[in-house]
Amino acid sequence: MQKRLMAEVIGTFWLVFGGCGSAVLAAAFPELGIGFTGVALAFGLTVLTMAYAVGGISGGHFNPAVTVGTVVAGRNPASILVPYILAQLVGAILAACVLYVVATGKAGVDLGGFAANGYGEHSPGGYSMLAGFVIEVVLTAGFLIVILGATHGRVPAGFAPLAIGLALTLIHLIAIPVTNTSVNPARSTSQALFAGGWAIQQLWLFWVAPILGAVIGATLWKIMGEHD
Amino acid sequence: MQKRLMAEVIGTFWLVFGGCGSAVLAAAFPELGIGFTGVALAFGLTVLTMAYAVGGISGGHFNPAVTVGTVVAGRNPASILVPYILAQLVGAILAACVLYVVATGKAGVDLGGFAANGYGEHSPGGYSMLAGFVIEVVLTAGFLIVILGATHGRVPAGFAPLAIGLALTLIHLIAIPVTNTSVNPARSTSQALFAGGWAIQQLWLFWVAPILGAVIGATLWKIMGEHD
Amino acid sequence: MQKRLMAEVIGTFWLVFGGCGSAVLAAAFPELGIGFTGVALAFGLTVLTMAYAVGGISGGHFNPAVTVGTVVAGRNPASILVPYILAQLVGAILAACVLYVVATGKAGVDLGGFAANGYGEHSPGGYSMLAGFVIEVVLTAGFLIVILGATHGRVPAGFAPLAIGLALTLIHLIAIPVTNTSVNPARSTSQALFAGGWAIQQLWLFWVAPILGAVIGATLWKIMGEHD
Amino acid sequence: MQKRLMAEVIGTFWLVFGGCGSAVLAAAFPELGIGFTGVALAFGLTVLTMAYAVGGISGGHFNPAVTVGTVVAGRNPASILVPYILAQLVGAILAACVLYVVATGKAGVDLGGFAANGYGEHSPGGYSMLAGFVIEVVLTAGFLIVILGATHGRVPAGFAPLAIGLALTLIHLIAIPVTNTSVNPARSTSQALFAGGWAIQQLWLFWVAPILGAVIGATLWKIMGEHD
Repeated sequence: MQKRLMAEVIGTFWLVFGGCGSAVLAAAFPELGIGFTGVALAFGLTVLTMAYAVGGISGGHFNPAVTVGTVVAGRNPASILVPYILAQLVGAILAACVLYVVATGKAGVDLGGFAANGYGEHSPGGYSMLAGFVIEVVLTAGFLIVILGATHGRVPAGFAPLAIGLALTLIHLIAIPVTNTSVNPARSTSQALFAGGWAIQQLWLFWVAPILGAVIGATLWKIMGEHD
Repeated sequence: MQKRLMAEVIGTFWLVFGGCGSAVLAAAFPELGIGFTGVALAFGLTVLTMAYAVGGISGGHFNPAVTVGTVVAGRNPASILVPYILAQLVGAILAACVLYVVATGKAGVDLGGFAANGYGEHSPGGYSMLAGFVIEVVLTAGFLIVILGATHGRVPAGFAPLAIGLALTLIHLIAIPVTNTSVNPARSTSQALFAGGWAIQQLWLFWVAPILGAVIGATLWKIMGEHD
Repeated sequence: MQKRLMAEVIGTFWLVFGGCGSAVLAAAFPELGIGFTGVALAFGLTVLTMAYAVGGISGGHFNPAVTVGTVVAGRNPASILVPYILAQLVGAILAACVLYVVATGKAGVDLGGFAANGYGEHSPGGYSMLAGFVIEVVLTAGFLIVILGATHGRVPAGFAPLAIGLALTLIHLIAIPVTNTSVNPARSTSQALFAGGWAIQQLWLFWVAPILGAVIGATLWKIMGEHD
Repeated sequence: MQKRLMAEVIGTFWLVFGGCGSAVLAAAFPELGIGFTGVALAFGLTVLTMAYAVGGISGGHFNPAVTVGTVVAGRNPASILVPYILAQLVGAILAACVLYVVATGKAGVDLGGFAANGYGEHSPGGYSMLAGFVIEVVLTAGFLIVILGATHGRVPAGFAPLAIGLALTLIHLIAIPVTNTSVNPARSTSQALFAGGWAIQQLWLFWVAPILGAVIGATLWKIMGEHD
């Protein structure tokens, strides 16, 4: 279990440092910045790369909602919930700390909301709490269907990290304007700790909606795809 | 058959929610928006990800033109046409409904034509009906050749969803300025229902041209590639 | 041989219609256009997708320089040179015709140089003939090394179209400002026929440099990689 | 060994010519330029493509930090260090020479700092030496974990070049604003020789930090993943 938790710490570190890091450091760089497309690509590639690297050790969740979904689908025992989610939080918060050191290494920087998730007036595009809740539930449900489907025995070995990583890219291509895209409570928590204030107040949604979505996705998958 | 139809509903939902969703919510976001490149990537990744997830259940068509093409090519019996196409329409329209809820969750929003397809004055770049018809036929024909070729026994198992998803990305990189890119009557129908008016009047083209293209592509493939 | 030539016609059609089509129709669309990144992606995906679809039939060259390189490397007999190159020219020119029909389906359009390749004052960035010659030679040489290496028995089956298609994307990410990127005489010829004038006068370079590069690349590969 | 060194020369040439070439020639092209996203994609695709092509010959390092990391992890004997690193330097400097010829083939060109790496006032975004040092260490450590993990026996053969190449894309999506992204001392050296002055003075960091990061990454991997 120790090596599995180390893999979850490192993988979630990479997800937050790479995904949120690209958002904070590179998205809005004048003229040449990577925009939402680049951030979406970065988030997806963190999962794609680390799922190849350490997926064989821990399963490569890097996300409490994913861990919940795999338990609901019967792929993992409930006993992994607490240690996995703690490991993910450790990795995510560690990444936020290192990102803070890098991002503040610049004169006159204003980190604003870091890469925190939000709704209402803290949604990048001004979308309501309802819109944010709906999109987080729907996208996490779809994410779990992709995860459970791509790791099923029907799919030849080796393609799952590709499908899952690129699913996270897709999800960010859609939802950054609405909630800055979470689908991952560990990622949201790590940024809220640095953004403070409103980000902490709104953090509940980014635990409830992704986990609800994961339960729905895992349930749909069980009905449709688990047995032939 | 029930699980296969459920897979088509979910896959087509994902295609429309992800592809059209990225167009409506994220394409034109000020400064950081994903543009046509991001939308093209999103459409392709919806198919790539869900074809890995549920392709082993239903074949992963998510598109009436694709279903027609596989029947013409002799890969599926004609009896799947009606149930598959209905399932695709259900998934697409459901996605448009949820997208409508999210997209209107913002003060003062004007959805314009949603992500409907059009020609003439409703073509994003002002292209004529003829131009739109030709490009939809040609691109759907090519799409079917990629689909039938990549799922043929010559190609090692597992690569088809990659090739097919990225073919849809390619198709969008070319044709968004001309018709907003359909090649998929279910996708077009779902958006026309919300855009109304002209979108309904022009909808015929986005059934006729993609299906004609699919028949041509499947026929070319049968001549060239089906038997050695 | 007939089916192989049909595969080369279709594959080269797809390469020119998709790659040059994205450049002519979508690259410079106001605000949302796909830019050189989108065009680079489109060119690469034409090869990636059609190499999966018909690579098992013809080898998936779609490019006279590639055909020459595979002959130099001893992978194919010299007898394929004339029929393959003719088939590639047919596919490329057919694609340019269809693209012309689509692109002119718009009031007041000025096609300028279509997607022709050029140097000196016809280089997109104003690069000299020498710069154009050097970059076309170097990139085609690298392209052939990737093609011959990725299709060698050392690499597990199925990955070659991915490596080769994305190599073409890479090549376009570098060289569009210099020559509009050829590395493919059939692609260049098809566009020069429609651009006329200077494009015809400069066309020699886009036959000589890619073919020279292909010979160099194939020779380097034979020294380094063909035998263990 | 001769063929292995030839493969490292060619692969590192491709990495520098393609990655730095896209940055120098195409990143800031008016309106249509590829920006940091395109440069990140180009760097990643150089490694992805050449790792498929020649990875089976030399291992496909193309980077002194990677060679050090594989030695620390026990994958290669220390005796490869000197010849591999020299071959990488030769390939990188050769590429910088050819790139110089191309880039100066344009009237009134000002190459500025070429694609050199820097910190402080020579960081693209004005980030401090500390920020640059930290991000280079962290990203190279993660890079090595991906490299060692994706080439481990747990992962089906053939996916490693994909994971490793896209990891380099990810790394560039994050760090270009901070240091212009090195994680590769050979790449940095080749550009510093042409940029001169400050780039030579700051070059030490782009040897020390990537190599330190590689040692850390390889060590973490040995603890977590090498043995089951």
